[in-house]
Amino acid sequence: MKLYDYKNAPNPRRVRMFLAEKNITEVEMINIDLAKGETYRQEFKDINPYGGVPVLELDDGDYIAESMAICRYFEEVSPENPLMGTDAKSKAVIEMWNRRIELNLYNPIAHCFRHGNPMWKATVKQVADFAEVSGDEADKNIHKLDKRLAVSEFVGGDTFSVADITALCAIDFAKVIQRRIDEEKHPHLARWYKQVSARLSAKA
Amino acid sequence: MKLYDYKNAPNPRRVRMFLAEKNITEVEMINIDLAKGETYRQEFKDINPYGGVPVLELDDGDYIAESMAICRYFEEVSPENPLMGTDAKSKAVIEMWNRRIELNLYNPIAHCFRHGNPMWKATVKQVADFAEVSGDEADKNIHKLDKRLAVSEFVGGDTFSVADITALCAIDFAKVIQRRIDEEKHPHLARWYKQVSARLSAKA
Repeated sequence: MKLYDYKNAPNPRRVRMFLAEKNITEVEMINIDLAKGETYRQEFKDINPYGGVPVLELDDGDYIAESMAICRYFEEVSPENPLMGTDAKSKAVIEMWNRRIELNLYNPIAHCFRHGNPMWKATVKQVADFAEVSGDEADKNIHKLDKRLAVSEFVGGDTFSVADITALCAIDFAKVIQRRIDEEKHPHLARWYKQVSARLSAKA
Repeated sequence: MKLYDYKNAPNPRRVRMFLAEKNITEVEMINIDLAKGETYRQEFKDINPYGGVPVLELDDGDYIAESMAICRYFEEVSPENPLMGTDAKSKAVIEMWNRRIELNLYNPIAHCFRHGNPMWKATVKQVADFAEVSGDEADKNIHKLDKRLAVSEFVGGDTFSVADITALCAIDFAKVIQRRIDEEKHPHLARWYKQVSARLSAKA
């Protein structure tokens, strides 16, 4: 198996963390240089017509795109160290939190970055006002995540899960829009951030 | 179990279709009137602090929000008539297509509607230029979906799946931004649309 990867992007990091948490090492990493526009080449579009990394190439030559679909594949073939729940309810609760973080935090950060940063000018029809609205949305949801972590050790419940991976990658990604955790304002988020950042997988 | 529902919104429809396909009938439906702003009331915020329907209330009193998390719950407790795949690869492929449709078609349609339609003025900080960009994105991805359906009977492969439910709800939702299928331009999408719209579940 091969994983089309890029070190400096948050989505591939989600999959690398997932693999590290599950101690899966038999995946060959292939670097796709986003900064050089390599995902826009026809060669890569044949692999993923919707663009973007990560993409998993299976041993039969088929491709799986979308971070969570790739994680789902590994959760199924390597069920040890489950990261997506163990029964109907925990699977649903973790998926709920993973999606809440994606929709309300990860996506607004990505929108703010893509619509507000000059590096995207050539590839995105930028709308500056939408970058601002998205930044406000991110701020509101950093606050909401702090409230969640006041009553739960991890994002998806009592155990570390893929929802923590998505949230950690989102919070670290927020650097590109100049948002960091304010320990005074967000003590629970700060506690969780310290805890999950110390995991070996956070360096993957 | 109770499902907090609203007939005229596309996300609750995804869950109603999922339940109909699986012949699950033992769920009490509770109408939340979005048009009357009922999701903004504190009473509902206690059920889902992130707002929005559908929400599933379990018999133990806990809540599951997010359409796909609710579908995941039912897929686990009622595995008959699987809609999310049957092995690692089909599960991953269906999740990939479901997410491609959500990210590239469903979300742009929702953005175009929320940022462009006067009915959202009071609740959304609207950015008209972003409504336009999102509409263009939706058009591009209606075309891409036609290309997918030229080589695949259903969105996620050879069998009907949750990816078809998401795509059908997205295409029908596109009425609110005045996008319909053009049979000349999108013959494969038109073939698929006729086929999936004829399913009994499409009326749920």
